[in-house]
Amino acid sequence: MKFAVIGTGAVGGYYGALLARHGFEVHFLLHGDFEYAKENGLLIESKNGDFSLESINAYGRAPDMPPCDVAIVALKATQNHQLASILPAVVKKKGTVVLLQNGLGVEAEIAAMLPEAAVIGGLCFLCSHKAGPAHIRHLDYGSIRMGQFSRDGGAAGITEELRFVADVFGKAGIQVYLADNLGKARWEKLVWNMSYNGLSVVLNATTDRLMNDPASETLVEQIMAEVIGGAGACGFVLADGFARQMLAATEKMVAYSPSMKLDFEAGRELEIHTIYWRPIQAAADNGYEMQAAAMLARQLEYLDRNNRA
Amino acid sequence: MKFAVIGTGAVGGYYGALLARHGFEVHFLLHGDFEYAKENGLLIESKNGDFSLESINAYGRAPDMPPCDVAIVALKATQNHQLASILPAVVKKKGTVVLLQNGLGVEAEIAAMLPEAAVIGGLCFLCSHKAGPAHIRHLDYGSIRMGQFSRDGGAAGITEELRFVADVFGKAGIQVYLADNLGKARWEKLVWNMSYNGLSVVLNATTDRLMNDPASETLVEQIMAEVIGGAGACGFVLADGFARQMLAATEKMVAYSPSMKLDFEAGRELEIHTIYWRPIQAAADNGYEMQAAAMLARQLEYLDRNNRA
Repeated sequence: MKFAVIGTGAVGGYYGALLARHGFEVHFLLHGDFEYAKENGLLIESKNGDFSLESINAYGRAPDMPPCDVAIVALKATQNHQLASILPAVVKKKGTVVLLQNGLGVEAEIAAMLPEAAVIGGLCFLCSHKAGPAHIRHLDYGSIRMGQFSRDGGAAGITEELRFVADVFGKAGIQVYLADNLGKARWEKLVWNMSYNGLSVVLNATTDRLMNDPASETLVEQIMAEVIGGAGACGFVLADGFARQMLAATEKMVAYSPSMKLDFEAGRELEIHTIYWRPIQAAADNGYEMQAAAMLARQLEYLDRNNRA
Repeated sequence: MKFAVIGTGAVGGYYGALLARHGFEVHFLLHGDFEYAKENGLLIESKNGDFSLESINAYGRAPDMPPCDVAIVALKATQNHQLASILPAVVKKKGTVVLLQNGLGVEAEIAAMLPEAAVIGGLCFLCSHKAGPAHIRHLDYGSIRMGQFSRDGGAAGITEELRFVADVFGKAGIQVYLADNLGKARWEKLVWNMSYNGLSVVLNATTDRLMNDPASETLVEQIMAEVIGGAGACGFVLADGFARQMLAATEKMVAYSPSMKLDFEAGRELEIHTIYWRPIQAAADNGYEMQAAAMLARQLEYLDRNNRA
């Protein structure tokens, strides 16, 4: 049983290293850190205990990798244009892809690339970042909410492939929660992502600061309400009080920089397309205008372009 | 004929100095620069030619000023709570107040403080800033659009008081355009102010950069359209193509930092209340929700509080 990690960064590197450490055969695709990782392995600093993998199966190009049973995709969504050339080479025909990204719409694209594969989406509640070449720092959290993509558009339920992947991750010490409806799970995560990610960049603020000012807290609440409206328009009715729960959970978190803020600070392209425009478009296709989210997305586009210029 | 300048800064200091230089009797109320200006007068660096007033009638407290025929109010709107104690002491009972501020709703407050005075609103197209104590740098433009406040709520038309003030300013070399409907003129200025002021702060961008990026240009256009909608709800139907004209005029301008951006950079409190919340409330009172402007206003509130903390 072979595992591939496509994108060995703060997310893929962390989870892939946990799998490898627990004895699974993991093949890591790297880009900038390839040579370094091939020489030195991977170093994980973690609140659960530091560890290193002194030698890993490191690859600089997908065609050099063996066909794998499970491919964990943890590229930045801005690099997803590479998937069409990577995945068919790396995933066995009836293999499984686990997409560890936020946003919307990517599972359908992967399913189209791999007509017989199982496609699973994973929503990570993870606070980690790259601290240096092949060096990942895990600060907090680490659970994943996983659901299977349904090729017929409905809820896939809890499938055999989903249970298998969850079991493997569980053995590696990763807490996995199963979702029978991936679409709904993605919209639930968007309630958090579309509010905190964008506002944290535009207002240059960690979550605690956004929650401690009445104006920014109101904006968070407004955008959450809008996302819940968009979810409903798309057929996913979120539970009463869902936003309130999420606000309360965020208030209890440590000062947190959402991934988009970390990307912005590192000068990386922001995942505006999958986290903002895809859900905005999905809601609009169902007659619901997400105007506040669209305004935030445009502000992010401006800031992103100028940040990278 | 005595003139008072209430707030001798980038706006009041500039226009007041022009009046004084042309022989009018001007009494300047200052705050932080009082002692310095009393000793050294005022220095105006201007694209139209530098000049200085070696000695001015400088006052640190309103009660020390003589009753004046015309009071030019050029405080930051965030200081308007001082007007109730200043104006009755400084303006003759049947005198005239010329309010040189952006935003909405202040003339009505002044009219209530001075039941027999004429109240004129002036919208300045001026690029100037304080360069040092009693030292003003005039970079560009300088015209004022003036209209009279009507106590009965309609258009005041071109009144005798308005012509008189325009004539005085004109003698001092200041280009004045008359507006027969101050309410409409204020909303027209808000089309510019509510879009460029807020976005320039939130996106940390001068007007040229806002116009040169498709995302920020779209935001400018959206907010302009919303302000025009708000104006219409309040009974002020702006001309077809008004926004387009304003966009074109702004594109022809030099790289420009709106006053709110200058305030932000100087750590001064932003004029969010008069430039955003007052028009948003006026539109809401007439059944029109300015949601984009409200979102921008909340972002500004967060940034303003943190900027001054």
